[in-house]
Amino acid sequence: MTLRLAGFGSFHVGGRVHDVRGEPVRRINFTPTAALDHDPNGRFTVEQAYVQYFIPEQQREAPPLLLVHGGGLTGAMWETTPDGRPGWLHHFLDAGFATYVIDNVERGRSGFPVDETVWDGKPIARSDREAWSLFRFGRDADFEARIPLPGQRFPLAHYDALLASFVPRWTSTTQVQVAGLIAAMERIGPCTLVCHSHGGDIGSRAAMARPDLVAGFVSVEGTGFPPADAITPETVAGKPWLYLMGDYLDLTPLWQGLEVATRETVERLVAAGGSAEYLDLPEHGFPGSTHMMMMDENSDEIARWLVRRLVTP
Amino acid sequence: MTLRLAGFGSFHVGGRVHDVRGEPVRRINFTPTAALDHDPNGRFTVEQAYVQYFIPEQQREAPPLLLVHGGGLTGAMWETTPDGRPGWLHHFLDAGFATYVIDNVERGRSGFPVDETVWDGKPIARSDREAWSLFRFGRDADFEARIPLPGQRFPLAHYDALLASFVPRWTSTTQVQVAGLIAAMERIGPCTLVCHSHGGDIGSRAAMARPDLVAGFVSVEGTGFPPADAITPETVAGKPWLYLMGDYLDLTPLWQGLEVATRETVERLVAAGGSAEYLDLPEHGFPGSTHMMMMDENSDEIARWLVRRLVTP
Repeated sequence: MTLRLAGFGSFHVGGRVHDVRGEPVRRINFTPTAALDHDPNGRFTVEQAYVQYFIPEQQREAPPLLLVHGGGLTGAMWETTPDGRPGWLHHFLDAGFATYVIDNVERGRSGFPVDETVWDGKPIARSDREAWSLFRFGRDADFEARIPLPGQRFPLAHYDALLASFVPRWTSTTQVQVAGLIAAMERIGPCTLVCHSHGGDIGSRAAMARPDLVAGFVSVEGTGFPPADAITPETVAGKPWLYLMGDYLDLTPLWQGLEVATRETVERLVAAGGSAEYLDLPEHGFPGSTHMMMMDENSDEIARWLVRRLVTP
Repeated sequence: MTLRLAGFGSFHVGGRVHDVRGEPVRRINFTPTAALDHDPNGRFTVEQAYVQYFIPEQQREAPPLLLVHGGGLTGAMWETTPDGRPGWLHHFLDAGFATYVIDNVERGRSGFPVDETVWDGKPIARSDREAWSLFRFGRDADFEARIPLPGQRFPLAHYDALLASFVPRWTSTTQVQVAGLIAAMERIGPCTLVCHSHGGDIGSRAAMARPDLVAGFVSVEGTGFPPADAITPETVAGKPWLYLMGDYLDLTPLWQGLEVATRETVERLVAAGGSAEYLDLPEHGFPGSTHMMMMDENSDEIARWLVRRLVTP
């Protein structure tokens, strides 16, 4: 897919200075020819967020998109599918959207503090088995035999490529990730948030805190929602809220609960004057959609359909 | 700077499966609406490397470039300068080079293992003070007063933007980073390695291990070198080896030693039939060049000069 860009680059936003004191200096051989006394004390930037941006030559008259990845992943998830096809990022650019891709605080090129006192707890990782049922490729009981759900569309022949893109996550950092996202929104200006999975929690909190910087909201199976009492005409009216949900939502109690929470949120948004819709992908012609719908075999079709929803009010 | 790309995307390469066993399952509230029993046991991919690629529409008949960042940084260092100008990546694309940017194993979007037994030791970070003299912006004694070296070209008004791009590094992972880089070279095919700082150590080792996949080598103040006994006609003859070195190399014993090692390496490469040059930036019209010459105020001019060196054999 050809890309013609008027601008491309990156920046870091947010964060704060963190002082470290009282640690011993130690000698480190960085390379055989570069040994240094390393002083672990001093001032460090922590809790910043990395944003990579792409501005199409033929830019649409529309708010920019800001893509917010989910837990255990980075902004790389939007670029290329595990089977090597162009990711949703390409479709958004092809449609003329200035598109910003964040690595949430702690993730990917945002980095993390080496001082373990900055955040509570240690990071965790997602195993091949945990992802299997969580992402609704198959039942947990069918993992060993790799029997997928009938009709599911994730390209399982390339499951290893998905697993290689997993990175660690802390479980205590949502608030600093919200702050990082808000710093990105302040830099970019009013934009449409496109939030996947845990990114839906981060994005919802940012959207409630700074409704002035949110032109629209796309939840791609977001797993977090604005609290009921935060949904007011002031925070949600007069802009689109699209909640995309895939297939097999009865697979686990987690997904059953998320479907209920998503439908309730859409009702609350509509009641408060938001232009909100629950978009059931199977009903819209995409049966077999998994939690990783931006990587499913029909991700191109889903992207084109989503773009049409975004550009046709 | 306009970019017209025939291709853009990313992939992960290398790595291995790592099994974790015997850890207790624990309940985690990922979001207020998504609580899960998280099993930390299972199979995880570790030591993979992330590569982002850009293929110009008007591609030059030349080997692709593979940009290898230095310690404590990620591939983001090539994209945009701290003062917001286009980074060297743009210049390479503008000159028609297919360009691949790696996040070395452990860094950025490559991720790291949460199991602390996989790598020795804990990661370290670079303070604002350590970078100040290490990157030759100023003398350590002048850090508090922020008195730079006379004539140095780093945009110090944007020092904070550089600090925000720092990420942790382990000090025990060079060999797995070499393996990750070789996996990238195997995927890309013969290419010219452009290696900054610690990337020079990683790149040198990869180049000696797989000379068949190296079409050329650019050391941008690389801090590691091929061992003398690895430099043979088989590993180095018939291809360019450019060693860029900036100003103020007498500032510290580290840089004094690196200048000597660089000059000795160039002599050995020439003796073995390599087309090797020590390129003293002040001599070539760029006085004041720091260790971060790809971010210096005259980084555009240095990039254009480097591109001319690359395309004029």
